[in-house]
Amino acid sequence: MIIAVDGMGGDHAPKEIIEGVLKALDEYTDLTVQLYGHTEKMQPYLKEHERLQVIHCEEVIEAEDDPVRSVRRKKDASMVRMAQAVKDGQADACVSAGNTGALMSAGLFVVGRIEGVDRPALAPTLPTIDGKGFVMLDMGANAEARPEHLVQYAVMGSIYAEKVRGIQNPTVGLLNIGTEEKKGNDLTKGAFPLLKQAPINFIGNVESRDLLNGAADVVVTDGFTGNIVLKTIEGTAMNVFSMIKDVFMSSAKTKIAAFLVKDNISGLKGMLDYSEYGGAGLFGLKAPVIKAHGSSNANALFNAIRQTRTMVEFDVTGTIYNTLKKESAE
Amino acid sequence: MIIAVDGMGGDHAPKEIIEGVLKALDEYTDLTVQLYGHTEKMQPYLKEHERLQVIHCEEVIEAEDDPVRSVRRKKDASMVRMAQAVKDGQADACVSAGNTGALMSAGLFVVGRIEGVDRPALAPTLPTIDGKGFVMLDMGANAEARPEHLVQYAVMGSIYAEKVRGIQNPTVGLLNIGTEEKKGNDLTKGAFPLLKQAPINFIGNVESRDLLNGAADVVVTDGFTGNIVLKTIEGTAMNVFSMIKDVFMSSAKTKIAAFLVKDNISGLKGMLDYSEYGGAGLFGLKAPVIKAHGSSNANALFNAIRQTRTMVEFDVTGTIYNTLKKESAE
Repeated sequence: MIIAVDGMGGDHAPKEIIEGVLKALDEYTDLTVQLYGHTEKMQPYLKEHERLQVIHCEEVIEAEDDPVRSVRRKKDASMVRMAQAVKDGQADACVSAGNTGALMSAGLFVVGRIEGVDRPALAPTLPTIDGKGFVMLDMGANAEARPEHLVQYAVMGSIYAEKVRGIQNPTVGLLNIGTEEKKGNDLTKGAFPLLKQAPINFIGNVESRDLLNGAADVVVTDGFTGNIVLKTIEGTAMNVFSMIKDVFMSSAKTKIAAFLVKDNISGLKGMLDYSEYGGAGLFGLKAPVIKAHGSSNANALFNAIRQTRTMVEFDVTGTIYNTLKKESAE
Repeated sequence: MIIAVDGMGGDHAPKEIIEGVLKALDEYTDLTVQLYGHTEKMQPYLKEHERLQVIHCEEVIEAEDDPVRSVRRKKDASMVRMAQAVKDGQADACVSAGNTGALMSAGLFVVGRIEGVDRPALAPTLPTIDGKGFVMLDMGANAEARPEHLVQYAVMGSIYAEKVRGIQNPTVGLLNIGTEEKKGNDLTKGAFPLLKQAPINFIGNVESRDLLNGAADVVVTDGFTGNIVLKTIEGTAMNVFSMIKDVFMSSAKTKIAAFLVKDNISGLKGMLDYSEYGGAGLFGLKAPVIKAHGSSNANALFNAIRQTRTMVEFDVTGTIYNTLKKESAE
């Protein structure tokens, strides 16, 4: 299996990206990695490896670049070349920790959509208190969605949860502002009856206050709401932790307490760290395209590669294609 | 000034409601309270007070009652009678900790909208890390909104922030999934240019991860998104605190730490407790209608009455009416 990796994307590229790649190559003997990036900049961190192919690219898509324009213009950017390798059949899937919008553009315009999927969806696995996690989509690939898009998101998320996350008959919830069927806006009211008829284990509406308690294995929503929820969870958790840190630093007495619970509290932060669950899949494309978190360290990138490998191994793309084709034929 | 209070609404009614009322009567000598509820049930907690009028109501709107139907049918419910007193000019404003949907119906159908306001908005003050707090609207009065509704929300929120919260020239942010003007869905893209022209201190888009850091004094969004954000903050904060509690209870060592920081941590939870900021105003009605949190204790109810009193004192309703009238005339 060949996975293409963007060596230049992310806050800690190329160092942490390359370390993650080397770790994955050691772990998975069936894996070959094509590493795209500026060889001079990557050189200090590279090691000879028989299953590592390094491909030089002159350009890089920066975090602040315009997503659509940069993909169209920077033809020799590591991210674009990586996506092109997937399109040309030289790689089975690709991973980048770079500019999210640009990766979505590269996925859409270079790799291309699966026939039958109207819109790709960005689907991270988010943490739950019990450590199981859940898949939420769309987290921002498309700000607007129609009811039938949510049904496709639900089908894609279910296939991913089952094949990659190993959950039998995963539950699917519709993110809403109440649990009753008639609640919500035009989108959720329209999607609810369609989701009931879809070939998934639909359990009805779920509320955002229950997400971290594991309300469902797959949660569907439009990209605007999904992105807002993701950032609200991040912001709230970060602020609560920073308030607690301030409490611990406030006096000699609390500093002793801090010393006593230090390890346990940092373990806690790890539990809410969604890079542990791999990257966010861009579902609905002709091959797996995975967005690793922008602040990915070597371990996060390793997890993203592991996840990508499982998606290829269990043919998630093929299963999505066949399921949606069967659906639309019925 | 006369404020009508629903004695039967909320998880801890009538006991905590009555205690909150008595505390407010002691604090504010210009205040008369009309307390609506079942006298037999309220009796154990009542005290004689010259500025307390107790009005018997046979019925109660329960938390699980259908909002619209219960307001239409239970004519002798404490919440409906309280709203009727405002409509009839017997009271200047009203407060309830009961069924949120029913209170919105009572506000809309009994008290009535201000001429010129298309839709009322539910507007709680949410906590920020620095303790200043911010007003967010709409939190769920209407799941759908059009761009011009967000402008009305912004005007109403600004007037409230200035008159009641004492903030000079309050900043107004549009909740969005990015800070650039062109970001977002059709609603935010449509609202942005209108907000720029409105008679408010519009500072552009704000992201949900920055809300608790005090991104703006007033944040506007549609009721669906607002409700989702509110519940995401609640759920995330609650879960992080419960995880921390588990950490503290995990060993003898951590239990000692817990003992050392106990008071500081519970102070923290208080900082994120938005009942400290009063209740959620239902803005756009002909008189102040305030929803106190369902789990209100005496102190939360006292805060809600204090806030209602300030809204009456500074004529927030009249200012909203005049501002929107001037706006639409231009």
